[in-house]
Amino acid sequence: MAALWLSPSPSLRHLLLLRPRFPGSFPLRHSHSRRLLCSSAASSTLTHGDADAPAAQGDGVVDVNPPRGTRDFPPEDMRLRTWLFDQFREVSRLMTFEEVDFPVLESEALFIRKAGEEITQQLYNFEDKGGRRVVLRPELTPSLARLVIKQGKSVSLPLKWFTIGQCWRYERMTRGRRREHYQWNMDIFGMPKVRAEAELLQAIVLLFERLGITSKDVGIRVSSRKVLQAVLNMYSVPEHLFAEVCVIVDKLGKLSRDEIERELISTGLSSEAVQGIIEVLSLKSLSKLEEVLGSDDDAVADLKKLFSFAEQYGYADWICFDASVVRGLAYYTGIVFEAFDREGKLRAICGGGRYDKLLSTFGSEDTPACGFGFGDAVIVELLKEKGLLPDMSRQIDDIVFPLDEALEGPASNIASSLRKKGRAVDLVEDKRLKWVFKHAERINASRLILVGSSEWERGMVRVKILSTREEFEVKAGELE
Amino acid sequence: MAALWLSPSPSLRHLLLLRPRFPGSFPLRHSHSRRLLCSSAASSTLTHGDADAPAAQGDGVVDVNPPRGTRDFPPEDMRLRTWLFDQFREVSRLMTFEEVDFPVLESEALFIRKAGEEITQQLYNFEDKGGRRVVLRPELTPSLARLVIKQGKSVSLPLKWFTIGQCWRYERMTRGRRREHYQWNMDIFGMPKVRAEAELLQAIVLLFERLGITSKDVGIRVSSRKVLQAVLNMYSVPEHLFAEVCVIVDKLGKLSRDEIERELISTGLSSEAVQGIIEVLSLKSLSKLEEVLGSDDDAVADLKKLFSFAEQYGYADWICFDASVVRGLAYYTGIVFEAFDREGKLRAICGGGRYDKLLSTFGSEDTPACGFGFGDAVIVELLKEKGLLPDMSRQIDDIVFPLDEALEGPASNIASSLRKKGRAVDLVEDKRLKWVFKHAERINASRLILVGSSEWERGMVRVKILSTREEFEVKAGELE
Repeated sequence: MAALWLSPSPSLRHLLLLRPRFPGSFPLRHSHSRRLLCSSAASSTLTHGDADAPAAQGDGVVDVNPPRGTRDFPPEDMRLRTWLFDQFREVSRLMTFEEVDFPVLESEALFIRKAGEEITQQLYNFEDKGGRRVVLRPELTPSLARLVIKQGKSVSLPLKWFTIGQCWRYERMTRGRRREHYQWNMDIFGMPKVRAEAELLQAIVLLFERLGITSKDVGIRVSSRKVLQAVLNMYSVPEHLFAEVCVIVDKLGKLSRDEIERELISTGLSSEAVQGIIEVLSLKSLSKLEEVLGSDDDAVADLKKLFSFAEQYGYADWICFDASVVRGLAYYTGIVFEAFDREGKLRAICGGGRYDKLLSTFGSEDTPACGFGFGDAVIVELLKEKGLLPDMSRQIDDIVFPLDEALEGPASNIASSLRKKGRAVDLVEDKRLKWVFKHAERINASRLILVGSSEWERGMVRVKILSTREEFEVKAGELE
Repeated sequence: MAALWLSPSPSLRHLLLLRPRFPGSFPLRHSHSRRLLCSSAASSTLTHGDADAPAAQGDGVVDVNPPRGTRDFPPEDMRLRTWLFDQFREVSRLMTFEEVDFPVLESEALFIRKAGEEITQQLYNFEDKGGRRVVLRPELTPSLARLVIKQGKSVSLPLKWFTIGQCWRYERMTRGRRREHYQWNMDIFGMPKVRAEAELLQAIVLLFERLGITSKDVGIRVSSRKVLQAVLNMYSVPEHLFAEVCVIVDKLGKLSRDEIERELISTGLSSEAVQGIIEVLSLKSLSKLEEVLGSDDDAVADLKKLFSFAEQYGYADWICFDASVVRGLAYYTGIVFEAFDREGKLRAICGGGRYDKLLSTFGSEDTPACGFGFGDAVIVELLKEKGLLPDMSRQIDDIVFPLDEALEGPASNIASSLRKKGRAVDLVEDKRLKWVFKHAERINASRLILVGSSEWERGMVRVKILSTREEFEVKAGELE
């Protein structure tokens, strides 16, 4: 069971009879989806975290819930998380990406951007006791970029790095939205060609395939920020408005078209430019795009190249061109993409793109860069819905149970030796045999090793194979 | 290389010619060692984090260092961390402990204690935007206890849980001490007998043995808080002073004996009681302790039982009685222990004990509990010193390299298929062959797969086994 991980869509929520208190559209690194079809709810377990009561109550009773909007991971949820992260790691290994990590606390300056992104408006920031502005990171890309710059000449490009980390947000007004989630990021630095995007898309598809998800369940929409750039160029919109326009346009589907148009106009765009933007964003075919922008356009060339790679890699059936994909982060400059469930019930599963200029905004040289963020919430929702969650029950090797307190010494010795041989051994005491059998079933023990006095007098123990109910005696020293 | 993990002792620091800027005695969950022999230094890499400059400089240049006192984990450091955590996890598996996790951010109330512990005086706390007092957790035990209470009747005791998490502290005055570290915790709830301690000690010894550390390198000092309790009872010291006295006494070795005595007197203890405490703490043999406290004393019985278990488990040569072990956390009530390097160069490697009353201070019922914390810093220092750090170089399976840009399609196809077969494949482009060979050596690739046009015309690729320098052609479709 992985109740804590779920933020079901309204329909699913209805089915699950959960209270609709958690419109949990957490702003994944790359998931400011304009297809935010559903506010979603967390399980009832999570509602604890929403309690507005202070942690310490007057009578010295401590609130047993984690801070509002955050999760504990009891063993069953932790097993699911570990399993998912192992999948992330295995795909990263196949793609030969190296793992890196950063402090969850970063300088606020790393995330200060002026384009009006939701992510920068919901920073979990504060001043530390030394007067420094710090933040519980909302995303991982700026830390990756920071470390690339810091490593400097000591590393040879291209760099292929991945990281899995907890990200945070703080909203002042909305009650009950989740404030943390985990994200898997894969990023390539120093690869200017679309090859980088092609590799990242293979990673995402490899992950889906490992999880049992097919291209019938999930697709990946692809476009390029250069499409918007080309339109803005047509209307001579000044360069510095680019990021802001992208962030506004990303809200299509979330806000009404009228609102989007008003916001665009307020940046100073002409209504012709606004119409041009809206029109181009409705394109769903690459050949149409080519008609509009011309075949020597950069965006068109990039996208054609990427689709040709997709054929070669063998994941063409997963991806489609959709000009409306812009993504909500300010720093993207080229190809952008997002994975979505084809039934359209969920938020974006992951998203990413090229961000060739982020490093220069940090005062370093421009370095080609490209990456994606993949959250831990929507994918689990999807797996649950498709019945693809694996069996998450415990599994241990042996239970050692002395039938008599006087035998606790020999039992210790047996448990200790088996553990040294690599077996996972649960040493149980002070329980009734009936409890021990139930326990063995609950934790999927392979064997039960009973240390009883009559056998022990002969240096023997009783072994029960739990799957076959086979029982036999064995010399204690010969247990393997 | 694992420079970031090191906080060498002064002598080691001297050898390594590091600047002595990092007296990094991070207060591990259980490591307020009164044997704080050495202030220790982090590697020069970490000194970045110490920079006092604000993250954003006036010219838009962002500080590339993580916040003061925190670490980045570039790939080589991350490999070491992953390896160490894998050892923690494997031992936890052998002992059949289940993994759990919590948010790094907790309510401050969970850590408010009045005994004057260093750990509660250095909380990395702040007020969130909703006016709640929160904290980047300084230790993991209170979160574990909180989750046990929250799980309530849904779990059957005993519970055996472990967690690995980042812990934080904030010191206002001292420059350059590390502000975060990772800690492995193993805890048993609901096991009143010394069996729990015996199991935890086996876990610690199993870990050391896996790491190649012997009982010649490391020992575990064991005592019981009940020893102090018995002395306080003798002098009719009121119960509520117990925790405070323990915290003061734990500073022996760190503060002078005079200072300790003054502090004890200031709590209201008579000078006879103070002398009695100091005397008993100097005992190093269990039989002496028995003489002083009597053979029916609880502390004596517990300790004898534990030493008898140690024989049965087979780790008696690792442990020794030492009444001066008290540990610096307020909540311990029974057996306490800490692992130390026998050369006496380092701080405590890990520490723990029984804390049967922590849950009731949170407003729940008393529940027997026992656990330890094992930090990520001192152990790596020790491994480094003993030459026991494993080879941390990268290892990948294949490099696929198209010799011609026109062959990027076939190269994609080959890389993609091999990855689907489970091989870790690095697809390299736009480099010279010489670079590729060097690269293959650097990342320990097993094979180099060259896609050249003359072979490709025949559907073949050239394979080079890098360890044997063997070279041959193979049909692209038959690559395994």
